[in-house]
Amino acid sequence: MLGENEQIDDLQINGLRIIQDKTRFRFGTDAVLLSSYAKIKEGAKCVDLGTGTGILPLLLSAKSPAAGITGIEIQEDQYEIAVRNVEMNNLGHKVGMIHGDIRNIREIFPAGVFDNAVSNPPYMKRGSGIKNSDSNIAAARHEILCDMDDIASAASYLLKDRGIFSLVHRPHRLADIVHSLRAHRLEPKRMRFVFPYSDSPPNLVLISAQKNAGSFLKVEKPLTIRNGDGSYTREIYDIYGMEGV
Amino acid sequence: MLGENEQIDDLQINGLRIIQDKTRFRFGTDAVLLSSYAKIKEGAKCVDLGTGTGILPLLLSAKSPAAGITGIEIQEDQYEIAVRNVEMNNLGHKVGMIHGDIRNIREIFPAGVFDNAVSNPPYMKRGSGIKNSDSNIAAARHEILCDMDDIASAASYLLKDRGIFSLVHRPHRLADIVHSLRAHRLEPKRMRFVFPYSDSPPNLVLISAQKNAGSFLKVEKPLTIRNGDGSYTREIYDIYGMEGV
Repeated sequence: MLGENEQIDDLQINGLRIIQDKTRFRFGTDAVLLSSYAKIKEGAKCVDLGTGTGILPLLLSAKSPAAGITGIEIQEDQYEIAVRNVEMNNLGHKVGMIHGDIRNIREIFPAGVFDNAVSNPPYMKRGSGIKNSDSNIAAARHEILCDMDDIASAASYLLKDRGIFSLVHRPHRLADIVHSLRAHRLEPKRMRFVFPYSDSPPNLVLISAQKNAGSFLKVEKPLTIRNGDGSYTREIYDIYGMEGV
Repeated sequence: MLGENEQIDDLQINGLRIIQDKTRFRFGTDAVLLSSYAKIKEGAKCVDLGTGTGILPLLLSAKSPAAGITGIEIQEDQYEIAVRNVEMNNLGHKVGMIHGDIRNIREIFPAGVFDNAVSNPPYMKRGSGIKNSDSNIAAARHEILCDMDDIASAASYLLKDRGIFSLVHRPHRLADIVHSLRAHRLEPKRMRFVFPYSDSPPNLVLISAQKNAGSFLKVEKPLTIRNGDGSYTREIYDIYGMEGV
């Protein structure tokens, strides 16, 4: 079941486990926070754009009342691990994986078939910063195989009228994100900044946008990861479903 | 010197005083925070779009090393008070007031003549919320005489290449603001949310955008107004130039 360099991690919820390649891009806090932030309604049909090894569909299968979650991944090796993750967790009845390119989404799905879209997209602009020499990690971190505009375009195409697109990203890209969402009729409705400490700049931003909605954005109270003494805040314990504080 | 309903308030800096009409829109925390947030360089030429009774030019004359600050105000009664405020504070050598409409800015100024623009614009969309029955207060709070797009257009026209536009606004308008700034080649470069308390949603946002700049936005650490016990934070004491804590 496990390939070379692969390991199984316990997701600490519903007994879920995930296979990941130790040498490649692995899921982090970002995916966990997004899975809690995306308020998905009972029976919703969801799609995850750029699912990697499938962490978001796995978490949403446990944490949300979605009826079904489909992950789309362009990189074949990541897609194959995602398929094994679904099998290992016996989630075939509600989680599906598709090997495809979101830039060709119109050839994969009809328009307006999903209630929710989620994405933990590459954060860095193509060409910015130091690219990882591994092409898989580079594609997960940099906008090489798709950019924010491709993702917003795909999300808008896939969502029903008034459907919700939730994503996690870096604050330094906020203007690009708002620009792309607006350009594809996705109106930002909720936004929450994530602060490593209460007096530090935010290092993540969670955004929910609604297709064809009017403009009124609720910027929510800060989500702080750690207290001044370095311990996790009560909210982080709640999100991770851990005992503590 | 004072008309009916007018009062003089002490600005607590450089001995500045401001005449305001007690029954109309009066300056608040917003203007004070913006005057500190807009980092204006030595010798800069600044313009304030929608200056009201001139609070921002007055504060900037004391708190910044600007060479000159010009306020533009469309409402005649507000403009006349602004002129008296300049006279009363003997600031005629560095602060000017113009009675004009920023939608006609191309008839008032040549392009690209300012280093900095600032604005504390109307926060509410036209037609949203309950309009104040006084047309002066309504115009200061609602986008009746100009909207965010008019302001971004005027700021972009007036600024030199790489000039800086700093504004204060409500977080719920963030998508509109980013959209308008981008549409007029003003790239958001710094953003800071203002929180009444550290665990509340933000009620103001400070933004600095640069004309013709590349996209990289620095979202800064939170600016918190009050501590948990209701007292002002040290940073607020510093911004207001007050002794305390």
